[in-house]
Amino acid sequence: MPTGPHSKGLFVSPIGDQIYALAKELFPLARTITGEPVRQTHEVLRRVIPELNTIEFPSGRRCFDWVIPDEWNVSAAYIETMDGQRVVDWADNNLHLVAYSTPMDGVVSRDDLLQHVHTRPDMPTAVPYVTSYYRQTWGFCLSAEQLKSLTQSQYRVVIRAEARPGSLTCGEILVPGETEDEILLHTYTCHPSMANNETSGMAVAAFCARHVLDLPRRRFSYRIVFAPETIGAIAYISANLDVLRQRVKAGFVLTCVGDDRAYSLMPARKGGVLAERVARHVLERVLHLPYDEYSFLQRGSDERQYCAPGVDLPVVSIMRSKYGTYPEYHTSHDDLSLISPAGLYGGFLCTKTAIDVLEANETLVSTVLCEPWLSPRGLRPPLVDGVSLVPWSALVSHVMAYSDGETDLLGIAEIIGCPIFDLAPIVATLKENGLLRPANVASAAGNT
Amino acid sequence: MPTGPHSKGLFVSPIGDQIYALAKELFPLARTITGEPVRQTHEVLRRVIPELNTIEFPSGRRCFDWVIPDEWNVSAAYIETMDGQRVVDWADNNLHLVAYSTPMDGVVSRDDLLQHVHTRPDMPTAVPYVTSYYRQTWGFCLSAEQLKSLTQSQYRVVIRAEARPGSLTCGEILVPGETEDEILLHTYTCHPSMANNETSGMAVAAFCARHVLDLPRRRFSYRIVFAPETIGAIAYISANLDVLRQRVKAGFVLTCVGDDRAYSLMPARKGGVLAERVARHVLERVLHLPYDEYSFLQRGSDERQYCAPGVDLPVVSIMRSKYGTYPEYHTSHDDLSLISPAGLYGGFLCTKTAIDVLEANETLVSTVLCEPWLSPRGLRPPLVDGVSLVPWSALVSHVMAYSDGETDLLGIAEIIGCPIFDLAPIVATLKENGLLRPANVASAAGNT
Amino acid sequence: MPTGPHSKGLFVSPIGDQIYALAKELFPLARTITGEPVRQTHEVLRRVIPELNTIEFPSGRRCFDWVIPDEWNVSAAYIETMDGQRVVDWADNNLHLVAYSTPMDGVVSRDDLLQHVHTRPDMPTAVPYVTSYYRQTWGFCLSAEQLKSLTQSQYRVVIRAEARPGSLTCGEILVPGETEDEILLHTYTCHPSMANNETSGMAVAAFCARHVLDLPRRRFSYRIVFAPETIGAIAYISANLDVLRQRVKAGFVLTCVGDDRAYSLMPARKGGVLAERVARHVLERVLHLPYDEYSFLQRGSDERQYCAPGVDLPVVSIMRSKYGTYPEYHTSHDDLSLISPAGLYGGFLCTKTAIDVLEANETLVSTVLCEPWLSPRGLRPPLVDGVSLVPWSALVSHVMAYSDGETDLLGIAEIIGCPIFDLAPIVATLKENGLLRPANVASAAGNT
Repeated sequence: MPTGPHSKGLFVSPIGDQIYALAKELFPLARTITGEPVRQTHEVLRRVIPELNTIEFPSGRRCFDWVIPDEWNVSAAYIETMDGQRVVDWADNNLHLVAYSTPMDGVVSRDDLLQHVHTRPDMPTAVPYVTSYYRQTWGFCLSAEQLKSLTQSQYRVVIRAEARPGSLTCGEILVPGETEDEILLHTYTCHPSMANNETSGMAVAAFCARHVLDLPRRRFSYRIVFAPETIGAIAYISANLDVLRQRVKAGFVLTCVGDDRAYSLMPARKGGVLAERVARHVLERVLHLPYDEYSFLQRGSDERQYCAPGVDLPVVSIMRSKYGTYPEYHTSHDDLSLISPAGLYGGFLCTKTAIDVLEANETLVSTVLCEPWLSPRGLRPPLVDGVSLVPWSALVSHVMAYSDGETDLLGIAEIIGCPIFDLAPIVATLKENGLLRPANVASAAGNT
Repeated sequence: MPTGPHSKGLFVSPIGDQIYALAKELFPLARTITGEPVRQTHEVLRRVIPELNTIEFPSGRRCFDWVIPDEWNVSAAYIETMDGQRVVDWADNNLHLVAYSTPMDGVVSRDDLLQHVHTRPDMPTAVPYVTSYYRQTWGFCLSAEQLKSLTQSQYRVVIRAEARPGSLTCGEILVPGETEDEILLHTYTCHPSMANNETSGMAVAAFCARHVLDLPRRRFSYRIVFAPETIGAIAYISANLDVLRQRVKAGFVLTCVGDDRAYSLMPARKGGVLAERVARHVLERVLHLPYDEYSFLQRGSDERQYCAPGVDLPVVSIMRSKYGTYPEYHTSHDDLSLISPAGLYGGFLCTKTAIDVLEANETLVSTVLCEPWLSPRGLRPPLVDGVSLVPWSALVSHVMAYSDGETDLLGIAEIIGCPIFDLAPIVATLKENGLLRPANVASAAGNT
Repeated sequence: MPTGPHSKGLFVSPIGDQIYALAKELFPLARTITGEPVRQTHEVLRRVIPELNTIEFPSGRRCFDWVIPDEWNVSAAYIETMDGQRVVDWADNNLHLVAYSTPMDGVVSRDDLLQHVHTRPDMPTAVPYVTSYYRQTWGFCLSAEQLKSLTQSQYRVVIRAEARPGSLTCGEILVPGETEDEILLHTYTCHPSMANNETSGMAVAAFCARHVLDLPRRRFSYRIVFAPETIGAIAYISANLDVLRQRVKAGFVLTCVGDDRAYSLMPARKGGVLAERVARHVLERVLHLPYDEYSFLQRGSDERQYCAPGVDLPVVSIMRSKYGTYPEYHTSHDDLSLISPAGLYGGFLCTKTAIDVLEANETLVSTVLCEPWLSPRGLRPPLVDGVSLVPWSALVSHVMAYSDGETDLLGIAEIIGCPIFDLAPIVATLKENGLLRPANVASAAGNT
């Protein structure tokens, strides 16, 4: 029986509550791909990670094939009856306004209004999430039930929104480690009031960043990116492509990490990269979590940019319920009741553990030829009954036998079928005894 | 349910009838590896493909390990009773005479005659097909029932056949395309009156050639070869080895493509070559035809030469009922009733579709880094409901995401699980928009 | 139904009896990792293989990470009651004394004695096998039943044993062949009176050596090593590392090859090496023996040294019941009744056949392009019925079709699914006819 964090909260730590509290603060902000709410989001995130830097990409800047759009801000948006009763109000729920709607102030017939209204007839009480970033139009999103109540022949529509040159806001934390090799964490900051997709990603990413920042020692450097989906990721990559390609050894897009119904893995376009091996090790060997396996054909978040041809970064996602697979997705039903401290903690634990696995992983090589002489070093119980080794001794032998300078510790753990963390104290002891060295450090003896 | 051409003729086109009509004309000619009937066969083929050139290899010429034999022609061959009644006559069925029989005119005892007679006791009414190209002897093939009727003590045997220096006749059509990369089609022209093996191969090859010749545009050049089996293929390869090795990217031996009982695949000696990938794509993804899978151990036609060590051309066969697997094989029962317009059309359609797949296939690379901006190009429905893309948009994304300069379009279609033809209009649109370029053409931007 | 040597002795040859007779002579010697009994073992082995050379490694010599220990010899060891009755005596069974026990002559209380006594409570009548090579202590091994009878309060303990500078004794036979490429056979000589582990290994290795020495022709050279386990293997490898790495193409550790209950395969650390392919071919295709498959994680004999990182020799074991898997392992119950002529013959036959497979294996290349012309060479029945080749002709075609200079004969046999020995006469004929040559010999014609 798996006994991971998904199973009835057995392992829910106080961190789950802290992540949930942060998600709750992030939830109501009326984010889209640009504008003040993204900056306010950064302010909220800084309560956990004051190290967060803000980067502004000015409107009109070319980023690969794209151009940074004008910045869009809203002060009010509503539909009211001719006698001044507000029947739909963005102030109640920011999903009501189609993102990047053009300004509007006028009376429209019911029929004209219906041309600008989006509902989900299959979910009568849900307000859908709709955007129109790159086409000049306006629109409102309503529940099907709300729509039914719009029976009058005319309505006044007011949208006090403005798109004008400004900038697109990204966030970044660079955490130095012992090497320039980088681990990338990425999440997106453009979704308004929805919880699993995507308040959860920001909240969990903040706590993963906190974990990284508080590590007493880091072999890897870390690059943690908060950016609006698609255009933000593209802007960020375009500004950092060379360094990303040179340094990033593994990456994780944090998305849909808040509910408590499933675990999901999205691999990179190229199979078998380190990040994928680590993710599977975390899910299968360390946390024993059953998970849904997806194909890169089912991609849908910023791995689309990181894994694009010519970018080709080894980026995967360990999710809870994947975007597009749960009924509440991209509607007002994806609210704070859908996520939970246990769900967020599970999402956090996966990526946090992936980081720990990466830090524990290295490629080692035996400093001796044939087996080492363990007895005089006190590394072998002195009297052997000859039938079997104690488990610790068996692991010592396995680590020495497979440390050939090619197989990394993660690979050895997979061969043995144990968590990499079981090998860490053995590796430490063997290093202290001078029996193992990192594969990339030249041997003084020059033996191997 | 597969609904391909094998299923009760649903898709039988008029071409099936045309191929059958050609097969009917080719059937009666008394072909063997040399001689006038091979040249007459070319004449018949020229009604469909006037472009067919004849190449003569003179007797005595060394071709690799072999020597072109003398040319053998027959004017008459029969067995008659001492009172002049013909009991077996080559003029009735050219299978009656063992190919390359030596001349004969004399009276032989029944016992001596039996030393020179071949039957198929397991198929009492079938005349077997027997040759003796390289050993000087004579012989007749009879049905077991005919043999029973030979009860007299003596018979007169007449074989007016002559083997003398002449030449071995091959046919060739070279069809230029936009590149020198070649697709090879090969069939053999040495089998006398048998239908599936091998009137069908010649008839279908002629119509495939016609298809190729009539293509408005060809990326590949085509080499279509009609040659007697084994010695003809060896002669042809020996005369063209360097150019074949340099140019041929995929090849198909057309054999046993006329009956309507099965589809069969013979792979090349080296697994996974382009021709094999294309053949499987045709059978599985495009035509949805169940097929019998064979091993190269079960080879038996001219892929033996094309796939020989040192020749190593990527040549496969998509057959109907494979040689050696059906009861009528190499007997007079493999007659025109065994093949049909539907059977021939199925055989034609497989290789014709393989050609179309090859023409549609190319290795492309994205001209942009990250995803392209589709909206301003009108390549993305302007208002996305955020839940799912329309299928066309999903294919656009997949083609862009996998066009990495290594994965060919066939590979992308296999990843997606759709016919390559579904991707062709998308590729055309993306090329028009400057978003894809062939992988082997240098990028002006030099980005990737 | 498999009909190999394991099945009711159908194929038991007189060699089984000879091997058993040798094992019987080797069994009683009180071997450990050093000392006179190892040298006496060599003397016994020389009755079968007078070619055996002895190599002495002096105490104190450093071998990689290890140091050759002092030589230990025993003249007597017993426990007696205060009235002089011997209750445990090494002279009865040399397992009674813990190997490398320190000298002792004194009276000890029953309680103190129990601190130095080893039993197997789970096997009341078995004396366990215990060693203490590298820790200074003394001890006795008793059956649990013997222990029960030690009811007196005091006993006299005598151990006349001495560890002093001397040497560690290894044995070696180098058998030259046509090339310097070597096959390695290795067994170990340090186990006292136990039969499957490990009198069987020495006895079978001696007869394998005899087989090799008596071969009329050897393509490979052979290196046959008899050494104490672990320290002996390490000493031997340290003295021969460069030549081993340069020459050894396949190796076999002979261990646990005497009982008749199972066949077992221990692969090398790196999968798919020649020795492993050969072992599988022997078990599956030649002898049709079902076998237990083990992982290198379950290693336990001198493949630990040969397959260590930096040594990396392609060494496997074909065993009968593997060490550690049968109940009698490392106890006095592993006695001469556990092994049998049939069991030993099966062990011998596997490694002997592996040698024969290796000698038969080579990588060949066709000297002609396309198929060879077999008829004029008499290699094809002159009149072909056209339906199928005789099996011999089919093998001729297969050998020619797959001899591409890359696929070795073992690989061709595996593709065909037949024993390599079925191909040997065909290869001989094709070589005589000049149609095949070894792949590494330059072609005069330069054709391929």
